Amino acid sequence: MRAVVYKGPYKVAVEQVANPKIQHPNDAIVHITRSAICGSDLHMYEGRTAAPPGLIFGHENMGIIEEVGPGVTTLRKGDRVVMPFNVACGFCKNCERGFTAFCLTVNPGFAGGAYGYVAMGPYPGGQAELLRVPFADFNALKLPQGTEHEDDFALLADVFPTGYHGTELAQLLAGESIAIFGAGPVGAMAAYSAIIRGASSVYVVDRIPERLQKIKDIGGIPIDFSKGDPVEQIKQMRGGDGVDKGIDAVGYQAVQPGQKDQEVPSIVLEALIQLVNATGIIAVPGLYVPADPGAADPHAKQGKLLISFGKLFEKGLRLGTGQCDVKRYNRYLRDLIIAGKAKPSFIVSHHTPLDDAPIAYEKFDKRVEGYTKVILKP
Amino acid sequence: MRAVVYKGPYKVAVEQVANPKIQHPNDAIVHITRSAICGSDLHMYEGRTAAPPGLIFGHENMGIIEEVGPGVTTLRKGDRVVMPFNVACGFCKNCERGFTAFCLTVNPGFAGGAYGYVAMGPYPGGQAELLRVPFADFNALKLPQGTEHEDDFALLADVFPTGYHGTELAQLLAGESIAIFGAGPVGAMAAYSAIIRGASSVYVVDRIPERLQKIKDIGGIPIDFSKGDPVEQIKQMRGGDGVDKGIDAVGYQAVQPGQKDQEVPSIVLEALIQLVNATGIIAVPGLYVPADPGAADPHAKQGKLLISFGKLFEKGLRLGTGQCDVKRYNRYLRDLIIAGKAKPSFIVSHHTPLDDAPIAYEKFDKRVEGYTKVILKP
Amino acid sequence: MRAVVYKGPYKVAVEQVANPKIQHPNDAIVHITRSAICGSDLHMYEGRTAAPPGLIFGHENMGIIEEVGPGVTTLRKGDRVVMPFNVACGFCKNCERGFTAFCLTVNPGFAGGAYGYVAMGPYPGGQAELLRVPFADFNALKLPQGTEHEDDFALLADVFPTGYHGTELAQLLAGESIAIFGAGPVGAMAAYSAIIRGASSVYVVDRIPERLQKIKDIGGIPIDFSKGDPVEQIKQMRGGDGVDKGIDAVGYQAVQPGQKDQEVPSIVLEALIQLVNATGIIAVPGLYVPADPGAADPHAKQGKLLISFGKLFEKGLRLGTGQCDVKRYNRYLRDLIIAGKAKPSFIVSHHTPLDDAPIAYEKFDKRVEGYTKVILKP
Amino acid sequence: MRAVVYKGPYKVAVEQVANPKIQHPNDAIVHITRSAICGSDLHMYEGRTAAPPGLIFGHENMGIIEEVGPGVTTLRKGDRVVMPFNVACGFCKNCERGFTAFCLTVNPGFAGGAYGYVAMGPYPGGQAELLRVPFADFNALKLPQGTEHEDDFALLADVFPTGYHGTELAQLLAGESIAIFGAGPVGAMAAYSAIIRGASSVYVVDRIPERLQKIKDIGGIPIDFSKGDPVEQIKQMRGGDGVDKGIDAVGYQAVQPGQKDQEVPSIVLEALIQLVNATGIIAVPGLYVPADPGAADPHAKQGKLLISFGKLFEKGLRLGTGQCDVKRYNRYLRDLIIAGKAKPSFIVSHHTPLDDAPIAYEKFDKRVEGYTKVILKP
Repeated sequence: MRAVVYKGPYKVAVEQVANPKIQHPNDAIVHITRSAICGSDLHMYEGRTAAPPGLIFGHENMGIIEEVGPGVTTLRKGDRVVMPFNVACGFCKNCERGFTAFCLTVNPGFAGGAYGYVAMGPYPGGQAELLRVPFADFNALKLPQGTEHEDDFALLADVFPTGYHGTELAQLLAGESIAIFGAGPVGAMAAYSAIIRGASSVYVVDRIPERLQKIKDIGGIPIDFSKGDPVEQIKQMRGGDGVDKGIDAVGYQAVQPGQKDQEVPSIVLEALIQLVNATGIIAVPGLYVPADPGAADPHAKQGKLLISFGKLFEKGLRLGTGQCDVKRYNRYLRDLIIAGKAKPSFIVSHHTPLDDAPIAYEKFDKRVEGYTKVILKP
Repeated sequence: MRAVVYKGPYKVAVEQVANPKIQHPNDAIVHITRSAICGSDLHMYEGRTAAPPGLIFGHENMGIIEEVGPGVTTLRKGDRVVMPFNVACGFCKNCERGFTAFCLTVNPGFAGGAYGYVAMGPYPGGQAELLRVPFADFNALKLPQGTEHEDDFALLADVFPTGYHGTELAQLLAGESIAIFGAGPVGAMAAYSAIIRGASSVYVVDRIPERLQKIKDIGGIPIDFSKGDPVEQIKQMRGGDGVDKGIDAVGYQAVQPGQKDQEVPSIVLEALIQLVNATGIIAVPGLYVPADPGAADPHAKQGKLLISFGKLFEKGLRLGTGQCDVKRYNRYLRDLIIAGKAKPSFIVSHHTPLDDAPIAYEKFDKRVEGYTKVILKP
Repeated sequence: MRAVVYKGPYKVAVEQVANPKIQHPNDAIVHITRSAICGSDLHMYEGRTAAPPGLIFGHENMGIIEEVGPGVTTLRKGDRVVMPFNVACGFCKNCERGFTAFCLTVNPGFAGGAYGYVAMGPYPGGQAELLRVPFADFNALKLPQGTEHEDDFALLADVFPTGYHGTELAQLLAGESIAIFGAGPVGAMAAYSAIIRGASSVYVVDRIPERLQKIKDIGGIPIDFSKGDPVEQIKQMRGGDGVDKGIDAVGYQAVQPGQKDQEVPSIVLEALIQLVNATGIIAVPGLYVPADPGAADPHAKQGKLLISFGKLFEKGLRLGTGQCDVKRYNRYLRDLIIAGKAKPSFIVSHHTPLDDAPIAYEKFDKRVEGYTKVILKP
Repeated sequence: MRAVVYKGPYKVAVEQVANPKIQHPNDAIVHITRSAICGSDLHMYEGRTAAPPGLIFGHENMGIIEEVGPGVTTLRKGDRVVMPFNVACGFCKNCERGFTAFCLTVNPGFAGGAYGYVAMGPYPGGQAELLRVPFADFNALKLPQGTEHEDDFALLADVFPTGYHGTELAQLLAGESIAIFGAGPVGAMAAYSAIIRGASSVYVVDRIPERLQKIKDIGGIPIDFSKGDPVEQIKQMRGGDGVDKGIDAVGYQAVQPGQKDQEVPSIVLEALIQLVNATGIIAVPGLYVPADPGAADPHAKQGKLLISFGKLFEKGLRLGTGQCDVKRYNRYLRDLIIAGKAKPSFIVSHHTPLDDAPIAYEKFDKRVEGYTKVILKP
C-alpha cells in the first residue's frame, strides 16, 4: 500500500510499504477513507521530536472495515468506522475508568498509546491506504453506512473531542463565561463545544483574522491579541469582571504577542491565571511536553515553566490537563453530527489526495494559503 | 395596595389590602412589575388544596426594590430584581448545600417555603403591587437596570429554572437523547434547556398542536400522543432504541391518552420506565403531592402510585424529584438571557393588568383562547 | 468435572458434566477455588424463577487461571483471580461508561449478563471445578499470588461490591448518617462500606439477633424491627431527625414486621421515604423483579409496587437502583483487603466441599444452623 | 477585654482593648472559650507579611454566644458555637455555590475574608475574650451544649476542615492510595481525613520523629524524607508503582531535604508530579502566596514557581488549590466527633491561658518543647 512516511526534518514522502496484517485476534484492518493532518504531526515533521525516519504518520483516521480478527465481536467487513487517536486496551485500570488516553497496556512503560506518533507505541499511522486497529471492538466507533458527514466524522478522531475535552476539564456549565486562548483547530473546537454546551459568553483569543472570523461566525466573541492585552480587553468588555473558566488551546509553543514571535511557553497560562475568577478552572488541552530540546529557554528545554502559583492558589483555581480520552466523547459528538446539531467540519481548509501529502505538510507547516486543517483522502 | 386574593374555589378577586412592611432587618419591599400565574396556582384556584380564602397568590415575581431593612447589604432602592419562588434563609443545612427549595428555617416543621402558596409559610404572594422579600440579599437576584428582557427575566422566578432543573436532575450531557412528557410551560422550558445544553435529540410528548408547534420551532421533536403510544413512536424513530434520559413535566394530573381524560397519575412515569434505556435517569420536576383528596383513585388520594419498580430496578434506572432550587440556576440563566443566547419568553401567551386577574385565571384554568402562560402587570 | 446442577424446585445435585472449553480467543478457563452461594441463588432454588433444570449455579467465583485463549493479553496460567458476577464485554456503550452490569453485548436483547443465572445469558456458573470466563482480560481481577485473604477476596465477586454499590448509589459522604434496611450479607456489606467511607451513624434494621450483633461489632447501630417501628426507633435516637441517606438491602421479598411474615414488597421503600430527610437519596441494591409469579399480591406478580410518590417528591428525594457494576469497585476493595483495612469475611458462616452443596443449599434456604453465607470449595 | 495584639516582628502582647460591639443586625458577639494559634499566624508574627501593628490575631475560634443582633435568626445567648476561619456573607455568587473561602462581599476588592489576618478584611481576631461574628447565622456552627469535645470542636474552625479539604480537592475515593507531604497540623489532619474516608494506603512525608509517630498511630505510613528521596521510598514500597492521589500540606516554605534547610518552594509539587500516577490529582491545601518579599529566590518573591508542567500534562494530572471553604465540611466533621468516630485533638500539643500567648508564640515559632498546636483559653 501507499503511506506517508517520515524521512527526516521537514521531509515526508509517499511510499510503497507492506500492507498491515492481523497480528492479534482482536485486530481489524481498516481501509482508510479520511486521515487528517494534526498540528502535532508538525512537531515531528519539524524534527523537534525523536521521531525516527520510516515512521508512518496519521492518528486522525476513519474508514471502512476490511478484515477482522477472530476475536472481534461487533465489527464486520464493510462497517464504516472512526478511530480515536488513542490506542487503548479497554481493560486496564485506566481504561476501565474511562482514561483511555492513559492506557497501561498498549505501550508498556508509559501511560498511553497512539497511531503514527513518536513514543506512543508500535502503531503505524493511518495516512495510508490501510490501518491496523488493535482491540478493534474498543477502538473503532461505528458510523452510519454511506458517505454523509465524512468530514465531520473524520474530526471525531481527535480535534472535535479534544476541543470538547477542554470544556469538560473546565467543568463548563450552561450560562458560564469562558475564555479560550488559541483559535486553531483545537481552540475553534473548544469554542464550538462551549457554545454547544450553552456557555453564555465564549471569548476566543488569537490574532489571525480568518480564525477570528470563524469564531464570530459560530457565535463566539473574537479577541485579537495583536491589538492589546487580551486579559484587559476581555475584562473591559465585562465591566471589570473576569471569566468563570478558561482553556489553554495553545500549548508550549505560545508566543509573546506584539513581538517577533518569541516563544514564551507560560504566557497563556499566566494570562489565564489573571483572567479566570477565583474558584474557577483552567483547562489545558493544548500540548505541553516534558522535554523540548529545541526550546530557547533552558527551563523550557526540560519542560519546566515559571508559573504564578501563589496567585493561582490565592484564587483557589483548579487545573485540568492532558491528552483527550476520545472515547469519553466521540459517541455523543457523533450523535450530535447525525442529528444535525454539530458540523465541526467548518474548520477543514483543504482536502488532498494521499500522494500530495508532502506538499500539504509543507504548506500547512508554513501556514500559507490558509492551510489550517488538511484532510488526506487515500 | 391592590392584590389578587383567593376567595374560594374558582374565585379570585383583586382587592385593596394593607401594604407589606419591613418586619425583619433583612427584609426588602419590592414594587412588582411582573408576576406570572403558574399552573400550580390553578391547583389552589380549583379548590383542590387546603388554601384558605384571603391568601394572596403569586410566586413568580419581579420588580424594583422600594425599601430595604437595615440588615440588607447588597440591595438598594431602585435595583431591578427577580425573586425565586422559593423563600429560603441561606444558612440552614439544606440552603448551605444549595437545596434552597428545602429550607429548614422559613417554614418551621417543613422543608421549603414559597410566596403565596398554601402550606409554604406565611409569605403573601406577589400578584400585587408590593411584595415583602425575606432574607432579601439571598432571595433577590439583581438584573441589569432598565426594562429590557422583562418577560424573559420574569420567567427566572420559576418556570425557566424549573425546566432547567429537569435537565439537571437528569444529569443531561451534550449529545444525549432525552424524552420529555408534557409541553406546557415546564415541559417547554425543559426542552429549551435540553437544547441549550446540547442534547442531540429532544422528544417532547403532548397533544395540543400549538404546544407541539412551539417545540418544533425551538428545535425539538414533537410527539403527539393522541396519534399513538408515544413510547412506540419514539422507539420507532430511533430504530428500536430508547432514550438516554427522561423528564416527567406533567405530574400527578396526567391523563390516559385517547380516553376522555381520565386521570391516571402514574401513566407518565410508567411510560418513562419503558422508554428510558438501562442505566438512564428519570427526572421529575412535574408536581406530585402527598395527598390529593380530589383524586378519583383511592391510592392517588393518599399520594400513592403503582409503579413498575421491578422493571425500573432491572434497568438500573435512577430517579430525581422535587421542587426546583431556583438559586442554583437563575444567575446562569439570567446571563444567557443577557448574552442573547436564551429567550424563554416564547412561552408567554398573554399579558394582563392586575385588575383583570380574575378573567385571566378563569381563561387559563379552562385553557381557552390559547391561555398557557399569563403575566400580570401590576 | 463436577458441578452443582439445578434439578428442579428445592433440588440441586452435584454431577459430572463436560469440562468447559475455550470458545473464543478472549476466553479463559479458571480452576475454581472458592464459589459462594448467593441469596439470589435461592430464588432459583425455590423454583420462583424460570431457571431450567440443568443449569449450573454459581456467580461468586474465584480461582486460578488454567488456560487462556490466544486473544488474552494480561492473564496467564497460574494467575489468581476473582470474577465479578457480571459477564461484560468492556466495549459497548454501557461498559465503556462503567455500567458493566448492563452490558449490551453478552446477552443479546437484554442489558446485562451473569454466570449461572436464569435469563442472564449462556454462561454456566462456577459452583464447579472449572469455569469459562469470557472477555477474560476484562472480567477477571488479578489477586496477589498465594492463598492469603481467600475468603475476603471471594466476596469481591458480588456481595462486598454490591454492599458498597449501595453506599455509592446513595452518594454517601463522610460524616453523613445512613439507615440500612436488612442485615443479611448485602446489608452487612453496605453497613461495612458505609463505615469504611466514614459515615457518622450507620443504623441497620433487622430482627435476627446474630445479624444485629455483627452490625454492632463492626461499629454500626443495630435496630431490631421486631421491637417497634424502625423509623420511629431511629428518629427517637436522633432527637426527632431523620437520616441523610438510606439503603434498601432487602428487596422484593420484604415482610411485614410483627406479623406472620406476610410479604409486603413496598414496606422497606415506604419506611425509607418516611425516614430519609428531604434532599436525601435512597439507594436500592436489594433485588426487585419485573415479574414475580409466586407473589401473593396481584400487582407484585407484575413487579409493581404502590409507592408514596407524592411524599417522595415533596421531600425532593432521589433514588438509585440496580445490580452492581462490580468492576467499578472491586479493584479498590481488593486494595483495602490487601492493606488490611477491610476484612469482609466476617459474614462467612460456613465452608463446604462442593459435593456437600445440596445440604448447604437446603440449610441456607431454611436459614438453619446460622447459615447466612456459604462458600463452596471445589 | 484582653486580646493578643501584634506589636511588630516576633512580638505580640496581651493588652486591654475595647470590647467588640454589634455593628450590624446580623452580628453576634461570642465569648471565646478556645482560640488556637495557626501556623499561618506565624507568617505574620515573623514579620513576613504586611500585617500592621495593632492587629488582634486569631482565626480558629470557638465559644459561647454572648449577644446577637436583631437580624440573627437561629442563634441565642448561651449557644455553644465554632466559627470557620472564613468570614463570609452566604449570598454572593461564590458563597451560594459553597465557595465561602472566596466571599465577594466581606472584603471588597478581594475574594475571601477571615478573622485576625492581614489583608483579609476588617475583622479582629479571636485570641481575645470576645469576638464579633458577622453574618452570624451563616458563620457560626452550633455545637451540643456542655463542654465535651472542646478541643476536637475547636479544630473545626480551620485545621480539621483544611486537612479534609485536601482529600476533597484530591477527590479521594475509598480504596485509593494517597501521599501527603507534611505531617504538621494540616498534613496530619489530611492523613486523618484520608483514613476516615477509607483510603487504602496513606503515606505521609516528614522528618520530625514525633510527627511521624503520630501518623503511624492513626494508621498512616510514615516516610522520613531525611532518610532518602521520599518519592523513591514510596515507589519502592509499592513495587514501583506511584500513588493515585497526592496532597501538598507544606506550601511555599518547603525546604530542600538533607541540606541546611534552604527554601525550595517548588520541591513538594515537583515530588508529587513525579509520584502521582497518570490520571491522578494533586491537592494543594498548603499555603502559597502571590508575593513573598522575604524569599531568597527572586521568582519566589513574586510568588512564581518553576514547575515541570510538561510532565504534569503528559500524565494528565489535575490540580486543586486554595483556602478551605470550612462550611462545606464543618457540619459533617462535627457529627463525626459527636458520634465518636473522629478525635482530631490528638494533634493538640499545648493549652495556654490567654495571658501566656507571647511565650506560646515564641516557642511555637521556634518549634521547641514539642510545640506543634497550641490552644489559647481566654
